[in-house]
Amino acid sequence: MSDTAGKSIFCKAAVLRQFNKPLSLEEIEVLPPKAHEVRVKVLANAMCHTDYYSWSGADSELNDDGLPVILGHECSGVVESIGEGVEGVKVGDHVIALYTAECRECKFCKSGKTNLCGSVRATQGKGLMPDGTTRFRSKDGKPIYHFMGCSGFSQYTVLADVSVAVIDPKAPLDKVCLLGCGVTTGTGSVFNVAQVDENEEAQAAVFGIGAVGLAVIDGLKIRKAKKIIAIDINDGKEEWAKKWGATDFINPTKLKEGETIVSKLIEMTDGGCDYTFDCTGNVKVMRDALEACHKGWGTSVIIGVASAGKEIATRPFQLVTGRVWKGSAFGGVKGRTQLPGFVDDYMKGELKLDEYITGYKSFDKVNEAFDDLHSGNVIRTVVNMWE
Amino acid sequence: MSDTAGKSIFCKAAVLRQFNKPLSLEEIEVLPPKAHEVRVKVLANAMCHTDYYSWSGADSELNDDGLPVILGHECSGVVESIGEGVEGVKVGDHVIALYTAECRECKFCKSGKTNLCGSVRATQGKGLMPDGTTRFRSKDGKPIYHFMGCSGFSQYTVLADVSVAVIDPKAPLDKVCLLGCGVTTGTGSVFNVAQVDENEEAQAAVFGIGAVGLAVIDGLKIRKAKKIIAIDINDGKEEWAKKWGATDFINPTKLKEGETIVSKLIEMTDGGCDYTFDCTGNVKVMRDALEACHKGWGTSVIIGVASAGKEIATRPFQLVTGRVWKGSAFGGVKGRTQLPGFVDDYMKGELKLDEYITGYKSFDKVNEAFDDLHSGNVIRTVVNMWE
Ligand SMILES: NC(=O)c1ccc[n+]([C@@H]2O[C@H](COP(=O)([O-])OP(=O)(O)OC[C@H]3O[C@@H](n4cnc5c(N)ncnc54)[C@H](O)[C@@H]3O)[C@@H](O)[C@H]2O)c1
Ligand SMILES: NC(=O)c1ccc[n+]([C@@H]2O[C@H](COP(=O)([O-])OP(=O)(O)OC[C@H]3O[C@@H](n4cnc5c(N)ncnc54)[C@H](O)[C@@H]3O)[C@@H](O)[C@H]2O)c1
Ligand SMILES: [Zn+2]
Ligand SMILES: [Zn+2]
Ligand SMILES: [Zn+2]
Ligand SMILES: [Zn+2]
Repeated sequence: MSDTAGKSIFCKAAVLRQFNKPLSLEEIEVLPPKAHEVRVKVLANAMCHTDYYSWSGADSELNDDGLPVILGHECSGVVESIGEGVEGVKVGDHVIALYTAECRECKFCKSGKTNLCGSVRATQGKGLMPDGTTRFRSKDGKPIYHFMGCSGFSQYTVLADVSVAVIDPKAPLDKVCLLGCGVTTGTGSVFNVAQVDENEEAQAAVFGIGAVGLAVIDGLKIRKAKKIIAIDINDGKEEWAKKWGATDFINPTKLKEGETIVSKLIEMTDGGCDYTFDCTGNVKVMRDALEACHKGWGTSVIIGVASAGKEIATRPFQLVTGRVWKGSAFGGVKGRTQLPGFVDDYMKGELKLDEYITGYKSFDKVNEAFDDLHSGNVIRTVVNMWE
Repeated sequence: MSDTAGKSIFCKAAVLRQFNKPLSLEEIEVLPPKAHEVRVKVLANAMCHTDYYSWSGADSELNDDGLPVILGHECSGVVESIGEGVEGVKVGDHVIALYTAECRECKFCKSGKTNLCGSVRATQGKGLMPDGTTRFRSKDGKPIYHFMGCSGFSQYTVLADVSVAVIDPKAPLDKVCLLGCGVTTGTGSVFNVAQVDENEEAQAAVFGIGAVGLAVIDGLKIRKAKKIIAIDINDGKEEWAKKWGATDFINPTKLKEGETIVSKLIEMTDGGCDYTFDCTGNVKVMRDALEACHKGWGTSVIIGVASAGKEIATRPFQLVTGRVWKGSAFGGVKGRTQLPGFVDDYMKGELKLDEYITGYKSFDKVNEAFDDLHSGNVIRTVVNMWE
């Protein structure tokens, strides 16, 4: 037992008090975990686009009623204390926080067909713990909301026990935090959703070469794809894509006259791609990704998150002639069951992680990490929560 | 060898000379089959909506340049003679014509992933035999075009050898002609495309209760679905649907205030359908069918053929949260390989066929069969080609 167990901990957190304004670094109170909860000392938190999206106020599910809130969801740490009835996680365990819980008991978990657990979804969406309250308080005693069931931008956070993956304690926490979202989402989409097979010599196209798109490329390499065509409107991404193993790069804004990205991909693959992945969130790109698929079997996976209200469209003939349109959240990965294996693959050198990290920031520079995200040259910035 | 082998045959055919006008019953000349072709004495041809669609001029792929043409594609018959190099089919064989060929040699056939054979597609789409000419001539010696590689509304027709399925000669030809399109499309969509499993106690919804929708219901019954919800704007279809095994029927124009067909289906299935099928061709229905699927795994299959230019749309979130959008042509069935098995299943009493037939017509009443199609109470009319 740690000395702090059962008591409030006072620590530093980056609090979002107003959309589109710098996070406020404050001392906050983190209450002890209740039943089926764990309190985690957060070591590292990488900056993901979804944090930025919510910070900017664009997320239709997070409005003023959800403020103040502590963002962050690509994070790792060490369990400081646990509440009553917690099984499978103990004090001292190294963990990655899961924004997609895995209870193993709900209809979704028991179906064996999806990683979208329903156990804590309703309260998580409202910024609350499963009992409907928060574990964060500001100095004046007012509640601060949770974010995606994680809130990694606090030095201590409280998580539902179904929202933590226990991992190998030898794994470097300031690297494996990336498995909390982007890298797992990209590689998992190849393994679990597209289910690309090693023996099929697949031809694939990846739209949008951020961390997620790069992770898709890594997944495709692992599954021995023959052709991996990377597509981005930013020429600077060609070098990144090639480093990860892309065989080709296309900037769709620089095609020849009369060419479209769809016609170009169909030509390059002699009929269309076996698999395509949208990692942009742009609904027009999603349509192109589907229509660039091979007739008869091509499968397109939507990973990007579109702006509120946007819709995808195509002619139904595209599907009647055998293309398949799918999507994926967290790469279809069941966090508690499968994430430890991702960590092991990384430790064996079979999965890239270090290569995505374009910089580290100390916690007091967390707002700079937000700015960097928009420079276009950053893949992932990891924030060291105790520096 | 028959006496007619190698010579032209003169027989009756129903020729479409002008869109939206009665078919003209004429004596035509049917040339002998060339290499890799077979000439078939057509016994029965059932009337499908696609014939009507093309007859009306709505089919963007068939315009005045494709006239005169002989329609019909749900047909069965006996091989009268064969051209050079034909393998696997001989004179006297009982066959069903295939509008979806199966060559076993093209990229599509060899992929093992689709039934969309590419071998005769280009010429078939133009109303021609694979050598680019036609085997039909009118009295004045002018060419008449083929339709969907079948042209069953002629007493004799010529087919590519890759476009015939050889079946059990004991099977009644005036029944199994239905396997040439609608029934195979519906049941095949359940078996091959949705791949509904006997053990999953599926909950499914079927939109549009024509022959195709009924065949989907039969497929779902065979795969032991627990709930089969039939949906049609025509109340008369309730009786049909229930006879096939639907557990529920909804007329979407008669919902309670505040209800939508999507909300109703989600309520009835406690979260959404495992599988939905569009058998209407209406793009709005296709969207409802997708959105009525269960989060995490629900799969929607588009079977209906939409009007030219129409598009499907939805929010990408529907796919990101695990729904899958697919489609199907001829139920994913490989005609030469799999259709004989469908015939056997029918002979064993495991697949309905007789029940779809709401009437027979003699060939000289073929235009009445077209009119019947629109009464709303006809499922399938079979035309006896020699009565
Ligand atoms: N489904 C999930 O579970 C999940 C998880 C994590 C992230 N995401 C989403 O995945 C997407 C990618 O995330 P990321 O962190 O890699 O973002 P990122 O911003 O780092 O990368 C996006 C890339 O797309 C490129 N791009 C933008 N518009 C384009 C266009 N029209 N054509 C081609 N390329 C274009 C950009 O130049 C950029 O390189 C985001 O939408 C994010 O919200 C989804
Ligand atoms: N993909 C393929 O390979 C393939 C093969 C054969 C037929 N088809 C298509 O399948 C569809 C069905 O064929 P069919 O022969 O059964 O047609 P059909 O006309 O006999 O049946 C269609 C049914 O849909 C109902 N309907 C129409 N609008 C509706 C709506 N908004 N909501 C609910 N029900 C509605 C009608 O009342 C009718 O009962 C057609 O579009 C046809 O072109 C596709
Ligand atoms: Zn669960
Ligand atoms: Zn993320
Ligand atoms: Zn073929
Ligand atoms: Zn048909």
